[in-house]
Amino acid sequence: MKLVRWGESGAEKPGIVGRDGTIRDLSGLIRDIAGPVLAAESLANLRTIDPATLPAVPSGTRLGPCIGFVRNFVAIGLNYADHAAETNSPIPAEPIIFNKAPSCIVGPNDDVIIPKGSAKTDWEVELAIIIGRRASYVHANEAMDYVAGFCVCNDVSEREFQLERGGTWTKGKGCPTFGPLGPWLVTPDEIPDVQNLSLWLDVNGKRMQSGSTKTMIFDCRQIVSYLSHFMLLEPGDVITTGTPPGVGLGMTPPRYLKPGDVVSLGIEGLGEQRQKVVAFDDWTAKVAAGEPTN
Amino acid sequence: MKLVRWGESGAEKPGIVGRDGTIRDLSGLIRDIAGPVLAAESLANLRTIDPATLPAVPSGTRLGPCIGFVRNFVAIGLNYADHAAETNSPIPAEPIIFNKAPSCIVGPNDDVIIPKGSAKTDWEVELAIIIGRRASYVHANEAMDYVAGFCVCNDVSEREFQLERGGTWTKGKGCPTFGPLGPWLVTPDEIPDVQNLSLWLDVNGKRMQSGSTKTMIFDCRQIVSYLSHFMLLEPGDVITTGTPPGVGLGMTPPRYLKPGDVVSLGIEGLGEQRQKVVAFDDWTAKVAAGEPTN
Repeated sequence: MKLVRWGESGAEKPGIVGRDGTIRDLSGLIRDIAGPVLAAESLANLRTIDPATLPAVPSGTRLGPCIGFVRNFVAIGLNYADHAAETNSPIPAEPIIFNKAPSCIVGPNDDVIIPKGSAKTDWEVELAIIIGRRASYVHANEAMDYVAGFCVCNDVSEREFQLERGGTWTKGKGCPTFGPLGPWLVTPDEIPDVQNLSLWLDVNGKRMQSGSTKTMIFDCRQIVSYLSHFMLLEPGDVITTGTPPGVGLGMTPPRYLKPGDVVSLGIEGLGEQRQKVVAFDDWTAKVAAGEPTN
Repeated sequence: MKLVRWGESGAEKPGIVGRDGTIRDLSGLIRDIAGPVLAAESLANLRTIDPATLPAVPSGTRLGPCIGFVRNFVAIGLNYADHAAETNSPIPAEPIIFNKAPSCIVGPNDDVIIPKGSAKTDWEVELAIIIGRRASYVHANEAMDYVAGFCVCNDVSEREFQLERGGTWTKGKGCPTFGPLGPWLVTPDEIPDVQNLSLWLDVNGKRMQSGSTKTMIFDCRQIVSYLSHFMLLEPGDVITTGTPPGVGLGMTPPRYLKPGDVVSLGIEGLGEQRQKVVAFDDWTAKVAAGEPTN
């Protein structure tokens, strides 16, 4: 099952993707793709619905982030062996965790804003896990029982803020629009093996990242289990699981995003994203006017 | 104005503290102390109400965290010069930021749970800022316009998880019950000078921490401004601003919390908290039974 949120930023409605790819309107049945809707019983109920019986959403409608009202947006650092190598970092002995501000979440095809004063905005295609059920001290063997689904995440990162401004990585990870999520929340039954999915990212049509979830250092089960030993995970929490090689920081010389660039990325079975990179000034006007920005 | 949340964990109602200290029930007027209620206009409306006209909440009623539905719970590290010294850390050139999982938030007098496998659970009395209005690229001189209020926070910390498990501090800061907030959200008009408040913390009646917000390295205005350059701050976001000297980690030998300890703490004008420290096993049973834990 592929769940989706569509409509204007800040007022998204829930939807489901039919067999022919048409998005169908779920708003007559549930309020949002968020919180308790992610419980296994609730997802099982949705699965009994024939999407073809629901109103179609016009094609071309904006997609929002595929999950609403995220509180805890956790990320795993350096979780692909060859990405750790390209950034001159040792293989971590335990997962490295940091946070992305939930206010950075946007739709899969929304613009990515280069922050004020940024010269090092970078890309990272990642597989994100969406929690469906409270998880605390969960064993890796049972961790998948707590997962509602998966989605594509661009873990957009500002490398100077992340690495040169003191303290933790958080500063370079949560700027507005740094967390495109979607297009879909894909439930685990649609994915034969989450640890064997290819993922890729292009900038202006040129392949920059290419990898497989096969080469994760800590797999999804281990990550959910590990995190649940340090914090109570709640329905709607999102965990993005690290990126394969090919980020701008790892190039010689480094290559960062500039206004006008187009980033496209995808994961096998989870769909694709496409973001236009825009300058900070274009976005400031929106905030000043009190318009929704995500 | 002092706002408060009262009632059972997970089902708190909003309240206001009257001149005589009686908590009055605001649930007939607003749904929660959260989100849009924190806007300046909304707080101004509440200020016109005479608390004595509202139903009294029975004394002895449990207090919840003074702010509901927090999404982003940010913390500033090493923000008191003498605390940095006691932990053998240099004075930071810029604020150090990390996150506490929002699921760690509890009421001011709820039990603090020692996590599974923990031997180094520590205390930190802190002044927390509650954001009232979207803040992005805000100048320090205007930062206070974005603040709805202040409250006491115990930034409970597990030092092994924080410092010895690789990566960022997040691992030792967001365990369940590690974020008591309250008793009250106190609006800025009640506080003559937020940078001149004494704060203290006792363990079993013995004074451990004693300080003043006067010795913060980065003051509240600078912190809100600084953070707003790295992330969009939203109404209901909480920023806890660092702790003065006297934590268990800084003692010779270090002194950590054990079941049965009682931690009490307070800040001038912002009220007091009191937590009983309990072993992990007492809490596990609640989670297993699906009972609310915060």
